[in-house]
Amino acid sequence: MTGKRRLGALFFDRFELLDIFGPLEMFGVLPDLYEIVTVAERKPSMASTQGPSVTIDRTFADCGQLDVLLVPGGIGTRGEVNNPALLRFIADQYPKLTVLASICTGAGLLARAGVLDGRRATSNKRAFQWVVEQGAKTIWVPEARWVEDGNVFTSGGVAAGIDMALAIIARLESDEVATGVAQHTEYDWHRDASWDPFAKLNNLV
Amino acid sequence: MTGKRRLGALFFDRFELLDIFGPLEMFGVLPDLYEIVTVAERKPSMASTQGPSVTIDRTFADCGQLDVLLVPGGIGTRGEVNNPALLRFIADQYPKLTVLASICTGAGLLARAGVLDGRRATSNKRAFQWVVEQGAKTIWVPEARWVEDGNVFTSGGVAAGIDMALAIIARLESDEVATGVAQHTEYDWHRDASWDPFAKLNNLV
Repeated sequence: MTGKRRLGALFFDRFELLDIFGPLEMFGVLPDLYEIVTVAERKPSMASTQGPSVTIDRTFADCGQLDVLLVPGGIGTRGEVNNPALLRFIADQYPKLTVLASICTGAGLLARAGVLDGRRATSNKRAFQWVVEQGAKTIWVPEARWVEDGNVFTSGGVAAGIDMALAIIARLESDEVATGVAQHTEYDWHRDASWDPFAKLNNLV
Repeated sequence: MTGKRRLGALFFDRFELLDIFGPLEMFGVLPDLYEIVTVAERKPSMASTQGPSVTIDRTFADCGQLDVLLVPGGIGTRGEVNNPALLRFIADQYPKLTVLASICTGAGLLARAGVLDGRRATSNKRAFQWVVEQGAKTIWVPEARWVEDGNVFTSGGVAAGIDMALAIIARLESDEVATGVAQHTEYDWHRDASWDPFAKLNNLV
């Protein structure tokens, strides 16, 4: 490829902090490869469930085409599944994305945008039933750290997004680059997508 | 205790994203116990090294006394060690804090503020020598996920802060509460403060 990949992080009110900032850290330590853009329905900022707010760089209207789109979860997803502007943004970006990825209950937004129809996907293990209800045509996988189906990645809850982000970097760049990122951030990368003690803990298997 | 603990997250330009948002996620899933406040020298926002900016709730002048103060690292620390306003804020908050904690090269800021004199502390394993140079009177521990000395906690690089945050929650609340937070966030908590493969990887031991 030539030039940097444009990576968009989708925000909405009451997003879950680590869902999105964990993966953004991993891509962010590769500034020569990824340009990070924060995007939301409106400026100037969106507030996390935990309190801190992030500044929005681009709105849906002026974002332009991305190469990678990351969609976090959080309690705000409960309202956003009924937000046509946000669902349309995901659906409109999708055809030209290299990778679309969700963390936690963000999979519910992907499902409602129609991009998980016929695909395998996973989500947060505590709110799994709610997410399943968002995608009747999705093949939901209850026990998985993350699921990769074509160019769509979906991860388990919160911290699972970090493992998925490294798997995306391994696929788009190389295993060596992803390993370097994990070492740089002193992160104990779970490389096995089937590692998931949280499915059992929540009686999903 | 009565009421919530006021937890301040210190920001400066070019902070490291996951250093601070990893720990804030852990405290943030306990909204009945912790009120999170973002604090910096000035409003309205501070930009991470990775790109995204966070909105600042309070300045040093109007922050008031905190119960817990978290200090991230990041390349911005290289300049902030010479910022008397920021160092004075840490030193002024310290006497009445329940816990002071740094992540990654944030330990360099604690050292320069004088609060690590005579204490054991650790930091990022790639930038360890730079941090050591900030605290001649500190007993630096090269191999540790985090170090606890009295009410001062210091962690290794980036992701190590999440393990430390859970250890702080275990100490201030209970092991049961911390375990619940790790399960809620699907995080594989390293409970052993001496677990540190990254010290060896960087030839510090």
